[in-house]
Amino acid sequence: MKRAALIAAALLLPAAATPLPPPAAAPSEIIAAAPVADWVTIADADLLIMNLASNNSGHARQVIIQLMPAPFSQGWVANVRMLAAVHWWDGTSVNRVQDNYVAQWGDATGKKTLPSALIKVPPADYTTPRTDKFGQSAQLSADSYAPETGFIAGWPYASDGHEAWSVHCYGMVGIGRDMSPDTGSGAELYAVIGQAPRHLDRNIALVGRVVSGIENLSSLPRGTGALGFYEKPEQRVTIKSIKLAAELPEADRPRFQYLSTESASFAKYADARANRRDPFFIRPAGGADICNVPVPIRSVPIKSP
Amino acid sequence: MKRAALIAAALLLPAAATPLPPPAAAPSEIIAAAPVADWVTIADADLLIMNLASNNSGHARQVIIQLMPAPFSQGWVANVRMLAAVHWWDGTSVNRVQDNYVAQWGDATGKKTLPSALIKVPPADYTTPRTDKFGQSAQLSADSYAPETGFIAGWPYASDGHEAWSVHCYGMVGIGRDMSPDTGSGAELYAVIGQAPRHLDRNIALVGRVVSGIENLSSLPRGTGALGFYEKPEQRVTIKSIKLAAELPEADRPRFQYLSTESASFAKYADARANRRDPFFIRPAGGADICNVPVPIRSVPIKSP
Repeated sequence: MKRAALIAAALLLPAAATPLPPPAAAPSEIIAAAPVADWVTIADADLLIMNLASNNSGHARQVIIQLMPAPFSQGWVANVRMLAAVHWWDGTSVNRVQDNYVAQWGDATGKKTLPSALIKVPPADYTTPRTDKFGQSAQLSADSYAPETGFIAGWPYASDGHEAWSVHCYGMVGIGRDMSPDTGSGAELYAVIGQAPRHLDRNIALVGRVVSGIENLSSLPRGTGALGFYEKPEQRVTIKSIKLAAELPEADRPRFQYLSTESASFAKYADARANRRDPFFIRPAGGADICNVPVPIRSVPIKSP
Repeated sequence: MKRAALIAAALLLPAAATPLPPPAAAPSEIIAAAPVADWVTIADADLLIMNLASNNSGHARQVIIQLMPAPFSQGWVANVRMLAAVHWWDGTSVNRVQDNYVAQWGDATGKKTLPSALIKVPPADYTTPRTDKFGQSAQLSADSYAPETGFIAGWPYASDGHEAWSVHCYGMVGIGRDMSPDTGSGAELYAVIGQAPRHLDRNIALVGRVVSGIENLSSLPRGTGALGFYEKPEQRVTIKSIKLAAELPEADRPRFQYLSTESASFAKYADARANRRDPFFIRPAGGADICNVPVPIRSVPIKSP
């Protein structure tokens, strides 16, 4: 088993010995060493809690999503908040799991009435002007999809210098839609469970990311219908509830923090992801794709009431 | 359900109507239209058939892997062939499933004796000289990991102009190893089940790719131990057998073809992946990551004996 354990040892385990020259810190070590001040607590109002029906072994399945802050996607985010507030998704289901692509949930019947207060968001809101606030934290190189990629306020973004937009990385949550100019109400959501489908950037709205429990979506059986839809209703996974954390008593709210993308710790972490110098690695890549530099997120003890 | 179906309609479904201007072909349509001459049959000697224990519902689970051709990784590929020929993996197990990373299999006991004929392959073989044979089929732009990416003989590669190497895309199969200079015997294998971990390129040997049944690895429950190892032996998934297709009677051999990366169809497909102009899309990306242009593979009817 020793050999088996070492494929990704450098990602998660400290070095067992000290070769010469001394190894550089692994990304995991940089995260562990980050001071408290570099961590930002996610507001209760930004956490969406999805409780799925228990699995066949009777284990509870929870997925927790962080909603996206301004300047991204705020019209759709407002719709998602409203749908959660009225418990619109309770009793709906995960209906589609397409391998190396997305898990998707919503009303499989297509008959459930949407709240009339939902707003229609225009396609122009897929992007936001690139202001001077962008480019002030860790930056990565140009990639196949954009001349500029980096982070802002805890989130990855891409830009062409004029506009900026959020990117379809693993675990990101977006809004299913009909043909353009429809941009989706927010009632149909999906999470990315495969190689970042960056061709969807600027074509579908992203509203958040899974901060806990992604495995409860990514390890679901794949649907065998077209696009990974489940063919039989009984294959769907029932959603018991989706609610905002702020709706729970304070003592019951989950609490998460992300590593500030404006911190020195994050800059060091991003550099280490691009240039692995920890002992397992022979040749550092010299670069990293924006989706290979996931923003570190940790759960923290719940405050006593 | 109409809305639900449309997230990726353009990936798999033909357009339902004809907007103005006429839509360009979707990648799936280009694949469907490719002439027979553009498809290459994978040799029986290059197909590895892994039969896992049935799942809880009694369904058989099979994973089929295509071994990598020259000039890549041939020392390790020879070892894998030898291990399959002596049925070394029969009765071993999938021991590790780490979300957004890898599923890994081999001898969990660490006590099984390896064939003495296995060769030790040097780290220098992680790359191969970039000859003039490279760069003769569809090429993509430079990415975060290499100044050159493209395809050769049905496989994606990256290059710095001097050396070329195969890349860690979704579904690729590689060789677990201990600390360098060990490069792994081939007995411990993994498949990528998440965002392409390209930082492993040139640091671990790749020997093949899953051409069928990746969902039987990617949808396994995630291990809860360090690095995604299963904590309890009973959580491991037994491997009934791994054998070469050539070992089966000819009538029983699975048959697959890949779209020749040197064909005009492939060039058109790669361009369409980088510039989605089918109706669902509003803004084509103008580029694609090498791992977002998976080489099309199809199963074909088995020849009559």
